[in-house]
Amino acid sequence: MAEPPKIRRILVANRGEIALRVIRACKEMGLESVAVFSEADRGAPYLELADRAICIGKGPAADSYLNIPRLIAAAEIADVDAVHPGYGFLSENPHFAEVCRACNFEFIGPPHEAIRRMGLKTEAKAVAQAAKVPLVPGSDGPVNSDDDAVQVARQIGYPVLIKAAAGGGGKGMRVCREENGLRTAISQARAEADAAFKNPSIYLEKFIDRPRHVEVQLLADSHGNVIHCWERECSLQRRHQKLIEESPAPTLPSKVRRRICEAAVRLARSAGYVNAGTCEFLVDSDYNFYFIEVNARIQVEHPVTELVTGIDLIREQIRIAGGEPLSVSQADVPQLGHAIECRINCEDPEHNFRPSPGLITGLRIPGGIGVRWDSHIAPGYRVPPNYDSMIGKLLVHAPTRKEAIARMLRALDELRIEGITTTAALHRRILRTPDFVEGRVDTTWVERVLLAPRERLAPTSG
Amino acid sequence: MAEPPKIRRILVANRGEIALRVIRACKEMGLESVAVFSEADRGAPYLELADRAICIGKGPAADSYLNIPRLIAAAEIADVDAVHPGYGFLSENPHFAEVCRACNFEFIGPPHEAIRRMGLKTEAKAVAQAAKVPLVPGSDGPVNSDDDAVQVARQIGYPVLIKAAAGGGGKGMRVCREENGLRTAISQARAEADAAFKNPSIYLEKFIDRPRHVEVQLLADSHGNVIHCWERECSLQRRHQKLIEESPAPTLPSKVRRRICEAAVRLARSAGYVNAGTCEFLVDSDYNFYFIEVNARIQVEHPVTELVTGIDLIREQIRIAGGEPLSVSQADVPQLGHAIECRINCEDPEHNFRPSPGLITGLRIPGGIGVRWDSHIAPGYRVPPNYDSMIGKLLVHAPTRKEAIARMLRALDELRIEGITTTAALHRRILRTPDFVEGRVDTTWVERVLLAPRERLAPTSG
Repeated sequence: MAEPPKIRRILVANRGEIALRVIRACKEMGLESVAVFSEADRGAPYLELADRAICIGKGPAADSYLNIPRLIAAAEIADVDAVHPGYGFLSENPHFAEVCRACNFEFIGPPHEAIRRMGLKTEAKAVAQAAKVPLVPGSDGPVNSDDDAVQVARQIGYPVLIKAAAGGGGKGMRVCREENGLRTAISQARAEADAAFKNPSIYLEKFIDRPRHVEVQLLADSHGNVIHCWERECSLQRRHQKLIEESPAPTLPSKVRRRICEAAVRLARSAGYVNAGTCEFLVDSDYNFYFIEVNARIQVEHPVTELVTGIDLIREQIRIAGGEPLSVSQADVPQLGHAIECRINCEDPEHNFRPSPGLITGLRIPGGIGVRWDSHIAPGYRVPPNYDSMIGKLLVHAPTRKEAIARMLRALDELRIEGITTTAALHRRILRTPDFVEGRVDTTWVERVLLAPRERLAPTSG
Repeated sequence: MAEPPKIRRILVANRGEIALRVIRACKEMGLESVAVFSEADRGAPYLELADRAICIGKGPAADSYLNIPRLIAAAEIADVDAVHPGYGFLSENPHFAEVCRACNFEFIGPPHEAIRRMGLKTEAKAVAQAAKVPLVPGSDGPVNSDDDAVQVARQIGYPVLIKAAAGGGGKGMRVCREENGLRTAISQARAEADAAFKNPSIYLEKFIDRPRHVEVQLLADSHGNVIHCWERECSLQRRHQKLIEESPAPTLPSKVRRRICEAAVRLARSAGYVNAGTCEFLVDSDYNFYFIEVNARIQVEHPVTELVTGIDLIREQIRIAGGEPLSVSQADVPQLGHAIECRINCEDPEHNFRPSPGLITGLRIPGGIGVRWDSHIAPGYRVPPNYDSMIGKLLVHAPTRKEAIARMLRALDELRIEGITTTAALHRRILRTPDFVEGRVDTTWVERVLLAPRERLAPTSG
């Protein structure tokens, strides 16, 4: 029992706000943090807050934040006990996790086998199926013939989605709303798939029309304890990039909330999952939910969960990696009040979201009651063009969703970032939209409604 | 029931961080805020956040923030419905409250009669006594003779405090630890009182040795609902100025916590108190508590309570003034986790806390999990020399006190205020002291231990 703590010094194998987030957690836990930086991030102000900072290469991520040998070398040089991968970059690279552990550094994330399994769609689906977690109904692999396709479609019900078995990127994809057009749609899809992938195989899935994206935060320790920290709604997306996240998911009936959270826990148990992870679901307009995937890492939007539960998820990650049990049991995880996060990106919404990196000449950070600001930027900081455009996360917490929205609008009014263009004004616009206020948004809403051209001849959805 | 809301526009009759606090609450409630400023505060950046700002006079507070006709004129000009006095300045001036109401502006605070009653020590004590709230035992007014004094001292027990009836400022005050020295001490006290106040009358009180300061946050609406929002410990004081406040009060047994909170509620009920207020107590080493006074206003340290209860106290104040009932009942007031506030003053602890106003040339605001920053300062802002030296309040919230202390130390490390000297370093020092960490501090600790000269010949206490 008198073993020394396993983790005393951590390599933060990431950059920007999530690096700062991990550095802060280390400080509060009395651990040393070692930051790494690329030439493009040299002199970034958040690096001062780490106990040490090591340059690991040139600006391109391949030469630094994605370069496993460089990161391992930094870990060796700094003699750390563990590596925190953050999100993005190498966080879901099973090989990185494996190499870290082979070099005797704890990897602050799931076992590499779990990362690998969750990264393979078919494997992840098999795990979900075994755990009786609902999947989007569909053909079991490619359909043998068009007649088979008709049978499958009848079984799963319309609308159905025809997808190229070898495909991706929307090629060979068709939505079909009734049996009448199915054979024509299939032959079009086959032709497109054949042209694009030299493979006319297709499979069918139930088409979830205007789904919502709801995800469940999971924590699992190495002693077999698995808990959920409730759900987050992340339907506000543009090109699959989340813009706004919140918890609880608005309008979700509490029975569904329980079921979706329990399903996520079942899946994690069944997978032998350890550390923090997120189980993502699509939710249809009848509140049926369908497993999409597991993100085997901490997520950008994790603070939303921290606000409603009071749990420090990064601290839990570090504790778990050190072999400690979860600091809370399921019964001790409340979902108090309402939290919202707006991702502040240096992008210009008026010009098709083109990145707008550059020098920050002035900064007014929102403060006061119920406001949290997670960001590495500072006046005089030059946002490098090399990486993700997210430069900060503005969060609020309030007793009700209505108050949280009002608080976020107040905080967005206070936020002033000079020198670069950001998405702050877009958030103000979204938060004032009746659809958002009344919880009537889905994953297609931003592009379908908010960013739709003012004059439109025909609806595009379906 | 379809009455229009009584309050739509509020005059914020204060300055600095509390003015900003009220402006923020107005914004979140959809109300308009009208700020006032003196010539010394002209151009202060927080004024931009109000819907309107009106100059009310010269720098000296007597010409502006303490000038009732000017404030009423501003309220008239801006056509407000209500006035929020903040803390300090006119907040506990019953005449101001009365004038506001006479001019048909809601005063966002207690009825002027309640302010007046609570401002008179004898009246407040009578209310406490009627409500069976413990007072410091003592003679019932001045003692008639030295023989009487001996009798009273025997009754209340030693040590006793001899106080000049006409006095103040420590003149004619003596501590006496045993009957042996009582008569001598009384005659010294009488002589001193006679010299200072031309009145040799003295009275006796039990001397509470090294007391703790614990106060209870109260909320009462105009419908007869009175609740407490638990207690705050404010023992860290220098010259009666609080430095650090926290909730819950460390080491306070939960039975005592309940009793002290219930006593405060009884007192408020008995006084017919309405709006927010604070009932202050001294607590001795055996956890006996004694009523000191009621502060009939919002207090500097109110955010500590907001963090552990989730209640927005300024919002409640405004709701109450508008005739609405409390938004929560007693059973819905949790005391979750632990919150700490450090007051950041522009003072130089190395030079006897001399004020150090001036130009803020650089500012790094702490952020991330569990951190709240309430401040009106900004880079380029010149702190005027005219007013209180407090320029910001740094708060943290965490599941446990230990984690809250670690979080505050992390946040203090991030805080960087350039151009002026502040008390931030002193807070770092206090938070690392075993006495503070273990909850062994009292109202004399800062001066008796922390700021004691390194070489000391004899203890001064008692």
